[in-house]
Amino acid sequence: MIKFFEYNWQVRDDWFDWCNQLAIEELLKERRGGTGSILYTLFHIIDVEYSWLCGIQAKKDVVFQFADYKTLEKVKSLSNTCRIEVAELLKTNLNELKEEIVSVSWDEDEYTGDDILHHIIAHEIHHIGQLSIWARELELSPITANFIGRKFESIHFN
Amino acid sequence: MIKFFEYNWQVRDDWFDWCNQLAIEELLKERRGGTGSILYTLFHIIDVEYSWLCGIQAKKDVVFQFADYKTLEKVKSLSNTCRIEVAELLKTNLNELKEEIVSVSWDEDEYTGDDILHHIIAHEIHHIGQLSIWARELELSPITANFIGRKFESIHFN
Repeated sequence: MIKFFEYNWQVRDDWFDWCNQLAIEELLKERRGGTGSILYTLFHIIDVEYSWLCGIQAKKDVVFQFADYKTLEKVKSLSNTCRIEVAELLKTNLNELKEEIVSVSWDEDEYTGDDILHHIIAHEIHHIGQLSIWARELELSPITANFIGRKFESIHFN
Repeated sequence: MIKFFEYNWQVRDDWFDWCNQLAIEELLKERRGGTGSILYTLFHIIDVEYSWLCGIQAKKDVVFQFADYKTLEKVKSLSNTCRIEVAELLKTNLNELKEEIVSVSWDEDEYTGDDILHHIIAHEIHHIGQLSIWARELELSPITANFIGRKFESIHFN
C-alpha cells in the first residue's frame, strides 16, 4: 500500500518537472477526455487524495478551488503541503486507517478506509495514464509509468 | 494486493463489454499515444501480466503474438484462460511469490516478486486510463475507474 503512494508521488513529481517545458497556456488548455487539462488533472489528483484522507479521519473536507491554483508552482506547492500531512498520517496510522468505516459529505455510501486507500491509488495511476496520451498529442515523450526499476524516496522522509 | 487484481479484472471485463459496440476496424485503429490501439492495449495488458507471473515462477515466458489475437473474442478468451492460471497462483502462493528474487529474459535487472506484482497492477490501471481518453475521442462514455462502489468477484472463484 505504502509503496504505491511512494510510486505515485515520485511519478507525480516527474510530471511536475515535465510540465516545466510547457507554457501555462498549454497546461491549462482544454483537452479531450479525462479531467480536461494537464494542470487540472494534477490538481484533481491532489485534491481527491487529500479529501479522502480527511474523510478517513472524519475531518471536515478542505475544499480547494482550482481558480486559486492556476500556475504550475501553485499546484506543486499544494502537492508538497498536502503530502507532508498525508505521509505523516500513513506512516503513523496506516493499520487504523484501513479499519475505519467512512462516510463523507460528497458520497452517500460508506466505505472501509482500506477501500478508500485503494481508490486513491488507482485514481492517480488512472489519470496519469491520461496525461501520457496528451503528452504524445503534444509530440513529447511521457514520463515512464514503470513501477519496477526506480528508487523510491521513502514515505518516512519527514 | 489481491483486491487490485480483482479490480483490474473487473474493469478489464467491463471494457471488453464496452468494446462490443465498436467494429473491429475501430478496435484495431492506430491511435495516438499508449500502445497504439484499443484491442492491442487489452492484449498487451494480458500479455504483460502473464509474462511477469511466469517470470516470478521462473517459468519460461510464453510469447503471445498479437497477429494471432486480432478479434475481440480471441483477446477475451486469452484473458479468461490466463486469468484462471494467475488467480490460482495468487490464491495459493501470494506470500511466496512476493519474496522471490526474479530475473527474466526481457530485462537485465533483478526485482522482487512483490515489486513485480505492484508493477503488473499499476501497468494495467495506467493503460486503462489511456482507453478512457480514446473513448472520449470516439464520443463514447468510458468505463468508470472508481475502485469504491463496486462489488468484486472474489479471486477465489475457481
